[in-house]
Amino acid sequence: MYDGIIQDLIDEFGRLPGIGPKSAQRIAFHILQTQNFDVTRLAELLTDVREKVRFCEVCGNITEQEQCAICRDPRRDETIICVVEEPKDVVAIERTRQFRGLYHVLGGAISPIDGIGPDDLSIPKLMQRLGSGEVKEVILATDPNLEGEATAAYLSRLLTAIEVPVSRLASGLPVGGDLEFADEVTLGRAFEGRRKVE
Amino acid sequence: MYDGIIQDLIDEFGRLPGIGPKSAQRIAFHILQTQNFDVTRLAELLTDVREKVRFCEVCGNITEQEQCAICRDPRRDETIICVVEEPKDVVAIERTRQFRGLYHVLGGAISPIDGIGPDDLSIPKLMQRLGSGEVKEVILATDPNLEGEATAAYLSRLLTAIEVPVSRLASGLPVGGDLEFADEVTLGRAFEGRRKVE
Repeated sequence: MYDGIIQDLIDEFGRLPGIGPKSAQRIAFHILQTQNFDVTRLAELLTDVREKVRFCEVCGNITEQEQCAICRDPRRDETIICVVEEPKDVVAIERTRQFRGLYHVLGGAISPIDGIGPDDLSIPKLMQRLGSGEVKEVILATDPNLEGEATAAYLSRLLTAIEVPVSRLASGLPVGGDLEFADEVTLGRAFEGRRKVE
Repeated sequence: MYDGIIQDLIDEFGRLPGIGPKSAQRIAFHILQTQNFDVTRLAELLTDVREKVRFCEVCGNITEQEQCAICRDPRRDETIICVVEEPKDVVAIERTRQFRGLYHVLGGAISPIDGIGPDDLSIPKLMQRLGSGEVKEVILATDPNLEGEATAAYLSRLLTAIEVPVSRLASGLPVGGDLEFADEVTLGRAFEGRRKVE
């Protein structure tokens, strides 16, 4: 244990996800001893991020304006909505450059263990967006895990009831991986979803 | 890539040691979304730590006053000085509760590869502290690696020349470890330093 402020800083860093006590100590000493590390900038960004960053009033993605850059972009296809759990999923999909539609960020996934039900997600806003009848397809891109699958199943029931065409991202072998290292569920899905070679 | 401030915050966290781009992103979103995480406090601590934390004018340990808590403590034995590389080594040794003397923090170790020579370490101040003749033992507790051993060898030559008794922390098998997993150098040292069982 150190005295005073340095220990407070170590404790505070230790509260961040993925930073244990040893890393927190290393970071605090780095900040203390590295003269060209700009503490003022990091301090300002920390307060700014809470004050200025908010959620897009249309899709729930993060933005510094009322609507996010994707919802504001007139070149995006408004007839396709891709539903994801978190803003970081939007970034991951944008990186593929394969999708030119709009997003809808749920803000999580259904998880009874964590006490998260459908009412805690941005589902009413999604239904409202679909109300106009302009949307031709909803792609469910929740995570391929228990919570994500449950959320996708829940949403697909809701959406097929109001006759909106729904699709789900393909499951299968990750590109660049080894077949022998794939878990049995993934390998099973890869068989199920096999495609005829033309 | 995100827009604006959130990406700036991710970049800034990514500059800290041990934090990769993925962790930086996770931390930034945690800060953005966790309402009970006190950003103002972390921001204040960051600027405070640079302004208020300094090095003890006697031993080089970190402190918020002119002298560190250990140098100020009248119960510590002033006749024994334990020489370490960094302030975090002081904390590690204090945790053992085995040492009641004073410390001297060098601020690093001799490392020609990193361009660190004896002149970059707090060696003149150590010699000055020994000048009074009150010190009966200097314990060299630099790291048991190449740089630490080189530093210890350099210091022991200097100190024996002015007839100050010098000792070095024992090398050997770590307590609680498995002999079969010890590297050959450590195991060799453990043989060299074996002690007769009474």
